Parts: sequence; structure tokens; C-alpha cells
Amino acid sequence: MKMVIAIVQDKDSNRLSHALVEANVRATKLASTGGFLKSGNTTFMIGIEDERVDGVMTLIKENCQSREQVMAPMSSMGGNADSYVPYPIEVQVGGATVFILPIDQFIQF
Amino acid sequence: MKMVIAIVQDKDSNRLSHALVEANVRATKLASTGGFLKSGNTTFMIGIEDERVDGVMTLIKENCQSREQVMAPMSSMGGNADSYVPYPIEVQVGGATVFILPIDQFIQF
Amino acid sequence: MKMVIAIVQDKDSNRLSHALVEANVRATKLASTGGFLKSGNTTFMIGIEDERVDGVMTLIKENCQSREQVMAPMSSMGGNADSYVPYPIEVQVGGATVFILPIDQFIQF
Ligand code: NI
Ligand code: NI
Ligand code: NI
Repeated sequence: MKMVIAIVQDKDSNRLSHALVEANVRATKLASTGGFLKSGNTTFMIGIEDERVDGVMTLIKENCQSREQVMAPMSSMGGNADSYVPYPIEVQVGGATVFILPIDQFIQF
Repeated sequence: MKMVIAIVQDKDSNRLSHALVEANVRATKLASTGGFLKSGNTTFMIGIEDERVDGVMTLIKENCQSREQVMAPMSSMGGNADSYVPYPIEVQVGGATVFILPIDQFIQF
Repeated sequence: MKMVIAIVQDKDSNRLSHALVEANVRATKLASTGGFLKSGNTTFMIGIEDERVDGVMTLIKENCQSREQVMAPMSSMGGNADSYVPYPIEVQVGGATVFILPIDQFIQF
């Protein structure tokens, strides 16, 4: 049994939840903030049998991997002229930070 | 020293908090959601000496164990006629998922 | 690699965040409550190389250590006459509870 703690961007959180439920993996979600990125993120806490850890890693990778996304030019609404970008740009989105911790015991009441 | 992580239904959360304080067990609570049940739950994070782990398990069991509860017939207020149940039914409530993790060090400043 | 879990008072949370960012330490923050103190607290979750654990401990100590603070006499606004304290008093503020947990694996996608 392992404890998998995965911190993913809010953007990918629902998609990962859905994939975990379909794979019959029980996860608890904690609202979290921080890392270097300012955007909100979600911390998934997953207790899982050793032999299923790789499968969970694959699900996290498939649903949250860091990737480039083309962003449409943004109007300067609410910003100033300096921050206006008149052409589409590629931004990095997604990404997951995952810790696998040993568990001494797992109990359900 | 162990780290006990207990995920319990919101319904049982206050009762468990009260029992832990009375037993002089320090717990930190994190708002959490998920697992297969849709209802909100609370994650208790408890740092505890090895010899007190069993006592904490007993408190969690006593206050959160999965049990059947008779639910009165619900009016269909806010729902549709299909979801109206005209007789009392038994539903499963409570339950706790508990992980016990090893700790390398515990420090207080 | 270790997982450092630090529970600090909300009062010290921003200061610690700032210090961690300046030291290039990535932290995830979880909103939390409890312990014996009623006031809100923040749980920092930090994944860090073994050789940097001491440095992180120093940052937590410097920014969150338990200390006495002189509180100005409070008006009884919103309270009753019994709770009015007519002279400055020293109160204990700050303090951090820190757990260091072993990690089997650390992965980034
Ligand atoms: Ni699907
Ligand atoms: Ni009581
Ligand atoms: Ni500074």
C-alpha cells in the first residue's frame, strides 16, 4: 500500500477525477494553492496497492502532463496597454508534482 | 511517532474533533471532498506517539464507524416525483478511511 | 527526498511563503483549522532534497517561532464588560508543528 499525493492544476483536476473514478481508484481532494505558479491547484490524496501505483501514475501523466497551449490574443480589458499581446502565444499549462509515500497501515471503519 | 491521516464524513467530523480534544490529541483538519461518496468530508492529520496510535484508532472507530441510519420519508420538495420515497429507508452513513504513515522527525518551534 | 509538512498560524503564513519562494523552495499550501488553538492555520507541504531539509527548518523557525507579543488594551466592543482588559498583555503567538516524512518516489510530469 502506498500513499500517492499528486498536486495538479485546477484546470486538469476534473479530468483526473473522472479518470480515477473510471479506474475505480479512490481519491480525496484537498483545495490547495501555491508552488511557483500562482494559479489554484488541487491536491489528490490516493491510497493504493503497490501493484496499482504504476497505473495511477499513467492516469496522472495522461491527464495532467505539462504541455504547450496556444492562447488567443487577449484584449487589454482590465489590463494596461503594455500587457496587450496582439498575436497568439504558446503558454505552458498543466503539469503534476507527485509524491509516493510508504504506508505502515491502512484501515477502514 | 506516526502520522495518522483519517478521512471522515463531515457528519462525524465535529464529534471526532471533540473526542480528540478530550483525549488530548492534537489534530489539524483539512477541508476535503471526494472518494466515491459525493458528500463533503474532512481530513484529520494527527501526529501521535507510537503507543497512542491504538487509542486514536479506537476514537475514530467509535465516532465514525460506518453504520445504517433510518431516514424518514422525504418530501419531494426541490426534487421530482421519481425521487420521492414514501417509507423510511436505511442508508449507510459514516465510515472512515485511515492511513498510518511513518515519520522521520517531529519538530515544534 | 523528504516531505516536510508544516502547520503554521495564518499570521505567519505569508511571511513563510515569501521566505520559501526567495530560497527557491516549492511549497503547496492547504487551508486548515484546529490543533488546540482555535485560530486558523495553514499547512505547508514541501518536497525537498535531504540535504536541504535543515535549511527549510531554519526558514520555518525564523518566520514562525512561538513568541510573546504585547497586545494593546482591547475595547469591549462586541464583547461584554468581563472580557475587557484595561492594560497591555503579553500573548503567545506563532509556533509551528513540523513533520518530516520519508518519500519513496518523487515524480514530475
Ligand atoms: Ni469517461
Ligand atoms: Ni464531551
Ligand atoms: Ni523579501
